[in-house]
Amino acid sequence: MRRLKIQNSPTIRRMPSYLHKLLSMREEGKTYVSTTELAESMNIELIVVRKDIALTGIAGQRRVGYEITPLIDHIKSYLGWQEPITATLVGAGALGSAILGYDGFQDYGLVIESVFDNDPEKIGKMIHHRKVSDYREIGAELAELRPEIAIVCVPNTAAQQVADTLIAAGIRYIWNFANVSLQVPPEVIVQREVIAGGYAMLAVKIKNSRSRRPVAIED
Amino acid sequence: MRRLKIQNSPTIRRMPSYLHKLLSMREEGKTYVSTTELAESMNIELIVVRKDIALTGIAGQRRVGYEITPLIDHIKSYLGWQEPITATLVGAGALGSAILGYDGFQDYGLVIESVFDNDPEKIGKMIHHRKVSDYREIGAELAELRPEIAIVCVPNTAAQQVADTLIAAGIRYIWNFANVSLQVPPEVIVQREVIAGGYAMLAVKIKNSRSRRPVAIED
Repeated sequence: MRRLKIQNSPTIRRMPSYLHKLLSMREEGKTYVSTTELAESMNIELIVVRKDIALTGIAGQRRVGYEITPLIDHIKSYLGWQEPITATLVGAGALGSAILGYDGFQDYGLVIESVFDNDPEKIGKMIHHRKVSDYREIGAELAELRPEIAIVCVPNTAAQQVADTLIAAGIRYIWNFANVSLQVPPEVIVQREVIAGGYAMLAVKIKNSRSRRPVAIED
Repeated sequence: MRRLKIQNSPTIRRMPSYLHKLLSMREEGKTYVSTTELAESMNIELIVVRKDIALTGIAGQRRVGYEITPLIDHIKSYLGWQEPITATLVGAGALGSAILGYDGFQDYGLVIESVFDNDPEKIGKMIHHRKVSDYREIGAELAELRPEIAIVCVPNTAAQQVADTLIAAGIRYIWNFANVSLQVPPEVIVQREVIAGGYAMLAVKIKNSRSRRPVAIED
């Protein structure tokens, strides 16, 4: 795996939330937004919002704020989301179903075209408008569909074998939800999703909030 | 909401993966680990692993690496995970079920004691060894259980109302999986989980890997 060093990862992780907010503002008929308004409606510090927006490279307009449509375009360009990205999903369990049902991805141009599972009870069933295909046919199907990303939602013990199969089928980008480090050849890029990562963030916030002494009030 | 500025959030997000790896190494009977070994088995750059481990405050031992048990303890202490953290989960749909079935949380001391839903077909059923309770009884049940964290896995449109109910029931820490910014009083801390955040990271990696020019080979 190429170990791409990514700068500004907290900013990148926040970008979908900005996009979601801006798309809904535009739908409500708004054309301009200020960073103050974004910060308040999204509970993010103003200075953080300003830095995040600056990283998209958009030119600021001090008085009226930012025009929403160009800001949306800049965020999409920053993330490489101008064109739809096609994907296949392997593992139609609870997590896979949740991902298929996540309403945000259509806004973000992620098109999950195919779903595979090896459970006979799931094969042929529809989950959120996609038919679950037989995992044994994944090679032939992916050769035809040629998705860019594979989303791996299988049990930990199966993840490496599934990754090997996906790579043999031509996949170069894997979004891995299994709790294992996949071993892959250098041309393959893996984004590991650590669901406990958010819990770690919350735990540190809890720890920090507890370690603050109560303010002494003098009267 | 208090807007706690958290330093080193990429490090914090990686910590559960180190912990997972170290716990499984210890189970295999190992007592020492080197940063090189961690970096290679986890596909993380060595310099990143070294910085992350240093942030836990553990003293290094150049020759033999780190003793695994003290390293586990330092990571737990860094994250505030020495003692178990109790939680309730609201919304027993696909995502809620996936979280209940996530095998990592027991290693990390997150104990999800109660589950609530308003769907009569789910109430009373067992999901991963927890019985789904009626959401209408959440106030009385939480007054007794007094969990520290509430995990919100309800549809976006219901999330604010559920948060209000949780806060009225005494919850101060919310892990929010709905794709909305919750409006909460200053004493409440929200960790918003943006599932598309990992997809944004992967998309930037794809963009960066494509923008690299092929290396010209001279002969």
